[in-house]
Amino acid sequence: MRRPLPSVEEFVQGIRASDRVLLGQAITLVESGREDHQALAREVMAQLLRNAKPLSTLRIAVTGAPGVGKSTFIEALGMHLVGLGKRPAVLAIDPSSAVSGGSILGDKTRMERLSAAEQAFIRPSPAGDSLGGVARKTREAMVLVEAAGFDTVIIETVGVGQSEIAAQRMTDLFLLLLLPGAGDELQGIKRGIVEMADFLVVNKADGDRVKWANQARGHYLNATHLLPPKPSAWQPRVMVCSSLENTGIAELWTAIEAFQHETLTNGFLEENRRQQARFWLEDSIEAGLKTMFYKHPAVKAKLAELEAEVLAGRMSPTEAAERVVGIFGY
Amino acid sequence: MRRPLPSVEEFVQGIRASDRVLLGQAITLVESGREDHQALAREVMAQLLRNAKPLSTLRIAVTGAPGVGKSTFIEALGMHLVGLGKRPAVLAIDPSSAVSGGSILGDKTRMERLSAAEQAFIRPSPAGDSLGGVARKTREAMVLVEAAGFDTVIIETVGVGQSEIAAQRMTDLFLLLLLPGAGDELQGIKRGIVEMADFLVVNKADGDRVKWANQARGHYLNATHLLPPKPSAWQPRVMVCSSLENTGIAELWTAIEAFQHETLTNGFLEENRRQQARFWLEDSIEAGLKTMFYKHPAVKAKLAELEAEVLAGRMSPTEAAERVVGIFGY
Repeated sequence: MRRPLPSVEEFVQGIRASDRVLLGQAITLVESGREDHQALAREVMAQLLRNAKPLSTLRIAVTGAPGVGKSTFIEALGMHLVGLGKRPAVLAIDPSSAVSGGSILGDKTRMERLSAAEQAFIRPSPAGDSLGGVARKTREAMVLVEAAGFDTVIIETVGVGQSEIAAQRMTDLFLLLLLPGAGDELQGIKRGIVEMADFLVVNKADGDRVKWANQARGHYLNATHLLPPKPSAWQPRVMVCSSLENTGIAELWTAIEAFQHETLTNGFLEENRRQQARFWLEDSIEAGLKTMFYKHPAVKAKLAELEAEVLAGRMSPTEAAERVVGIFGY
Repeated sequence: MRRPLPSVEEFVQGIRASDRVLLGQAITLVESGREDHQALAREVMAQLLRNAKPLSTLRIAVTGAPGVGKSTFIEALGMHLVGLGKRPAVLAIDPSSAVSGGSILGDKTRMERLSAAEQAFIRPSPAGDSLGGVARKTREAMVLVEAAGFDTVIIETVGVGQSEIAAQRMTDLFLLLLLPGAGDELQGIKRGIVEMADFLVVNKADGDRVKWANQARGHYLNATHLLPPKPSAWQPRVMVCSSLENTGIAELWTAIEAFQHETLTNGFLEENRRQQARFWLEDSIEAGLKTMFYKHPAVKAKLAELEAEVLAGRMSPTEAAERVVGIFGY
């Protein structure tokens, strides 16, 4: 026998009381494709947002090439936050998980200590057939974990280009992890990603690699000095750390707090969040429009007919689109 | 006094007769944001498509990091095609041109010889405020130049991640230009881009750099052998050339012809074009839906009201989207 879903009230109260089971269920609801789940999720979100204090949280995107040690780094940073009495939550954006069938945070052996910490919350990446869909779900999950009292949300991305941009569009701070060794400075990371970073952190500065890490730091310092000023007025910081030996993590967090203070003071954090809400609204409208459109019975029939014309090369896609959109909405 | 625009018939006949002035005007029409221009452009496109022989053309995407010599390469390849009696057209995808104010093919000093060639056609990148818009215009411009008898369309992209993907989604063949020197093998190019390539061409194999170019070729040969087979069943080719000394260009073209022959024979070229028409239809529907939606008077009023709620943090973007989409289309 399947248990009925909790009610809106049960979800709202449970999440506010930081009930992990209900929080997890709510995120599952957000990720669900079922319409009744979506309707319930929207109602829960709407109620939670009414009492949200958004500027009391910090949203951090963490990215870097495969092998740079993202999980170990996030665990070290997360454990440092737990030690300070903070409550970190880790979410992931991984549009490729739908393809590979895996999920980047799904591996139970990763972030063992952080997973076990009472004050922390880790959620594997949602499955999704498009980056847009995955990003939408991650944004909603972020609202839920913040409502449950998690004050520092870390969004982990897998470096496949667009997911970094999606992550930047939903966070306050963009942190790029790098490998030691000035020689491989590019590491497959596009210049645009380096330009987006508020923090460039050379990880694995331990053992023989300390020297290379410091060299890399010098290189990136030069590179970031050449960049135009950011809208946040924040001068990107280049730091080194070892997630393994837990060095540099406390210094990094102090610098992140300075970022938070500066951008709260100069109004960037708030203005950026407003801009992000605007993007989110636009994305949601687009998704809603498409869903409504493709479900419309007259559209379905006409589209099948016009698509056949297009595929046979008898009609331009532009003309077919105009015709099928024309039967809708007037 | 402004001259009236040519009629649909004048456009169609002029383009079929390969009248460059009318072709240029038609592309301008496609790029125009004005609704009457768009309507005229759609009608012209519709008529031209009725007689199109799409599989008689080849569409090539050329990409590579800044400094790799894309223009010089395209000029060398284009002049080789002119020498063979073919008719190349060069278009560009450059979503950044709207920001920088420039256009990547706008510089008159670039591709001087090819610009002057009777059989070639070069069109600077359209301005656009989004990659989607720019890609749409480039696709339509491609249909126009093909209708004018240009048989080989080269789409030049500027390496900013998404534009390569947009270019791949509208072409038959993806060619990645690389610099000599195995040390800097990544050149800021994501692995995903390397995996997309049908041809990896190490440019600037001249003078002292021949040795490095051959080393780089060996490196990429190894890298491509590890890749899973492509849907086209084409094994990526790794070649070297010097656009400056015009070496390797003829060999490259012979290999490109082998690609064309193989993918025509195994049906990939046709199936790929059909899939691209499907994407194009979807993109056009999406654009059409959004245009219709945001123009709707009731939507405008409601949206302003709901956006204010969202920005004040009183309503979730998801809920606002649902409400505003709800007033449309029912």
